[in-house]
Amino acid sequence: VIDAPDPTGRARRRAVSYAIDETHDETLRAWVASANTEDTEFPIQNLPFGVFRRREASGAAALVQRMETSRFVGAAQRFEDARVGVAIGDQIVDIGVAAALGVFDDAPDADLVRDAVVACEAWTLNPLMSLGRGPARALRVALSRALRIDGPDSARARDLADRILVPMSGVDLLMPVDVGDYTDFYASVHHATLVGSLFRPDNPLLPNYKWIPIGYHGRASSLVVSGTPIVRPTGQRKGPDEAMPSVGPSRALDYELELGVYVAGENAIGVPIPIGDAEAHLFGVSIVNDWSARDVQSWEYQPLGPFLGKNFATSVSPWVITMDALTPFRVPRTVRPSDDPAPLPYLDDARDRAAGGLEITLEVALRTPAMRASAYEPAVITRGSSAELYWTFAQMLAHHAMGGCFMRPGDLLASGTISGAAPDARGCLLELTKRGAEPLSLPNGESRKFLEDGDEVVMTAWAERPGFRRIGLGRCEGKIVPLSV
Amino acid sequence: VIDAPDPTGRARRRAVSYAIDETHDETLRAWVASANTEDTEFPIQNLPFGVFRRREASGAAALVQRMETSRFVGAAQRFEDARVGVAIGDQIVDIGVAAALGVFDDAPDADLVRDAVVACEAWTLNPLMSLGRGPARALRVALSRALRIDGPDSARARDLADRILVPMSGVDLLMPVDVGDYTDFYASVHHATLVGSLFRPDNPLLPNYKWIPIGYHGRASSLVVSGTPIVRPTGQRKGPDEAMPSVGPSRALDYELELGVYVAGENAIGVPIPIGDAEAHLFGVSIVNDWSARDVQSWEYQPLGPFLGKNFATSVSPWVITMDALTPFRVPRTVRPSDDPAPLPYLDDARDRAAGGLEITLEVALRTPAMRASAYEPAVITRGSSAELYWTFAQMLAHHAMGGCFMRPGDLLASGTISGAAPDARGCLLELTKRGAEPLSLPNGESRKFLEDGDEVVMTAWAERPGFRRIGLGRCEGKIVPLSV
Repeated sequence: VIDAPDPTGRARRRAVSYAIDETHDETLRAWVASANTEDTEFPIQNLPFGVFRRREASGAAALVQRMETSRFVGAAQRFEDARVGVAIGDQIVDIGVAAALGVFDDAPDADLVRDAVVACEAWTLNPLMSLGRGPARALRVALSRALRIDGPDSARARDLADRILVPMSGVDLLMPVDVGDYTDFYASVHHATLVGSLFRPDNPLLPNYKWIPIGYHGRASSLVVSGTPIVRPTGQRKGPDEAMPSVGPSRALDYELELGVYVAGENAIGVPIPIGDAEAHLFGVSIVNDWSARDVQSWEYQPLGPFLGKNFATSVSPWVITMDALTPFRVPRTVRPSDDPAPLPYLDDARDRAAGGLEITLEVALRTPAMRASAYEPAVITRGSSAELYWTFAQMLAHHAMGGCFMRPGDLLASGTISGAAPDARGCLLELTKRGAEPLSLPNGESRKFLEDGDEVVMTAWAERPGFRRIGLGRCEGKIVPLSV
Repeated sequence: VIDAPDPTGRARRRAVSYAIDETHDETLRAWVASANTEDTEFPIQNLPFGVFRRREASGAAALVQRMETSRFVGAAQRFEDARVGVAIGDQIVDIGVAAALGVFDDAPDADLVRDAVVACEAWTLNPLMSLGRGPARALRVALSRALRIDGPDSARARDLADRILVPMSGVDLLMPVDVGDYTDFYASVHHATLVGSLFRPDNPLLPNYKWIPIGYHGRASSLVVSGTPIVRPTGQRKGPDEAMPSVGPSRALDYELELGVYVAGENAIGVPIPIGDAEAHLFGVSIVNDWSARDVQSWEYQPLGPFLGKNFATSVSPWVITMDALTPFRVPRTVRPSDDPAPLPYLDDARDRAAGGLEITLEVALRTPAMRASAYEPAVITRGSSAELYWTFAQMLAHHAMGGCFMRPGDLLASGTISGAAPDARGCLLELTKRGAEPLSLPNGESRKFLEDGDEVVMTAWAERPGFRRIGLGRCEGKIVPLSV
């Protein structure tokens, strides 16, 4: 319980820094050559956490893990061989092996590093997240020192390279977190306005939007890691001109481009998290695709909100980019026109105002079966930025917990669809095609109203800024398959 | 994965019986005297499952368990001394101890009983629920035989009574299940119509209501066991006549009287659960109080549904009454006027039509601080029946999974507020007081629009029918306390 008086020194773990430190130095290079290429997503300035397993057999390993690691089937069935790792170039540092071999023995903040290493002896990142941000940050510094060329603690690591590094090409990346509760927000005012105009032409942006970070509870069980096939859901739907609803595979399957943040630490049930403390509870981010069946959603969503239109699957990218890695890409709280109401005090904080935003560019590419057959590159159909969100993650978390809702380590808060003001910055097909009324033309001559079977959606994201090394978030991809029973 | 071909014989575990068997015999009596009194909730015909811990210290033990048993804080912090038990009169059978002492050695279906016993070596009922209904039913038969006077296997159990029985007075009842996902439905048409008329006078019952078992995703982290104090949530709210929203403790705190069912077994993600299989996935029921902050809810709920108005706490009763214990109380599917549309085929099944309903009476009593001070009995303010629900639990589950949503063992599906047609059968204060417009008069001269600090809400429920022994569901209670920081 992080917000209680804490004689054990946990408060120290809460400290949040917006300061650039040695790990962000643009000139750092790693002794892992692939981390120094121009186009790598994982230079030494990134160091994201994930969970991997050495590949033994091909097949839908990711899906299997999602099922088998469910805590409900009993510990004996969990993957004994799932490991916590950190990406560097095209390699992964096996944290447990590196620690056992003494790679972190001379790192600063030895006690915090030790806590982090113990927490990494797990098959998810939840234990690490339960410690707050401090231990993961200390481990990040230790890794940076161990991996950099001529780093203070790099000699031993370099000597042991073949034991502590695992090539990404030989592993399956697994669900990084066992998400207890998943919440999806609605933080893009452009998305809320555009979608609102499609569902409620007379009343697009509701009066509560600029006061409340609107969100709803998603379905934690249906979170899957990137690469898991997405079965087209069967659903009940009724068009406005149809006399009665019908049942069948969704005819309006869509993606939603989102960014998600995982919670660090926890509150006590009944006790809010003040906005000033919220940033200390943000561990790191991943790309999220909140797949949506628009026909199901529009028929079911009143009065209690989206349900089956959203809960068949939500994909997440496998690497969790820490907030510490993202320090150079913090920007002032997002655009709020001066005639909009000021945030209520529980959502307002000087630090959040100055640096609560995140400048991350996100892109959606579509690859159809015809493109695969004719060697067309996937077509980029959307590019947006999280800097255009109306609410910050700190505001979303402070709002979420204001009534005492119990937030647990690893809970996932997603932004909602990230749409910008520009026509090509709309983060879902619903908006891009105006609910199918204006089909999207693809470079190979095809068009799409919504997703068809065999279509692959590939989301990527990155952060860049002059004076800093560009870092990537990895990929969040999924292919639509029909139900086969 | 229960719906796949199953060479291991798991299919056998799925078998559902609506037949009355030896465990339902009205004339059975237990050698535990307290199980034979007229007013006991736990006669030998009931045998509900729960999780308990011998009490060592007083205090908010239930709350502590909710936090400590969270899987996210690491196994080491879980209660080593939480035990799975079955209620009999004012005693609890410690399943692990009874099995170790050989009490079930001569039971029929020895392999299923053994599976159940192994699954009960846990600190929640999730492993038992993961096996489907078969093993728990076999254990129920074994317990009935071991506990009845002159039962076929009762001699050994009776000799060992002081080792296998634990008095309820000496234990804390803990959260019985670690709920992965919690869904709240809206299955009472009376509730939907009445609440709809308060929130949308022009449009009370939406056009989808009679086609879809409407539901939304609740917040699993905020589920607490009966007896946990409920902190009045702080929230953002705006009355229709107010120029802007304000923040403060909810002024319209309410209870919702519900019945919840826990899921047995699981599907595979992407694969529906047909209506004919749904009953095999219903493990048993508990009483649920979905506490609600009406002022917060009405300001926030459009367009994505209830969020902070519901997620600060939801209470559940500690005993899970198995569907097998409830066999005598099955009734035809609930009232659907003949001019209402027939359920779509995926929601229609002959067995569900004939016996999908449950006749359970539920009651709400309110005890105010003034009543406690002057020795007034709690005032019964609502009595309803689950037989009046518009949708059955099988229909709710089949709908929930129709698009492939992953349902895990121990997931909780609650009915939504149970309101009947009668004025005193309204399952929340919102309805009883018409949103505060007609305060409720209490027998001691007090009145209530909504709940005040210090008020206790006590929900009880039971099933009875001529020719069968009455069984109780236990209690779901909670006391409102102000936030103290």
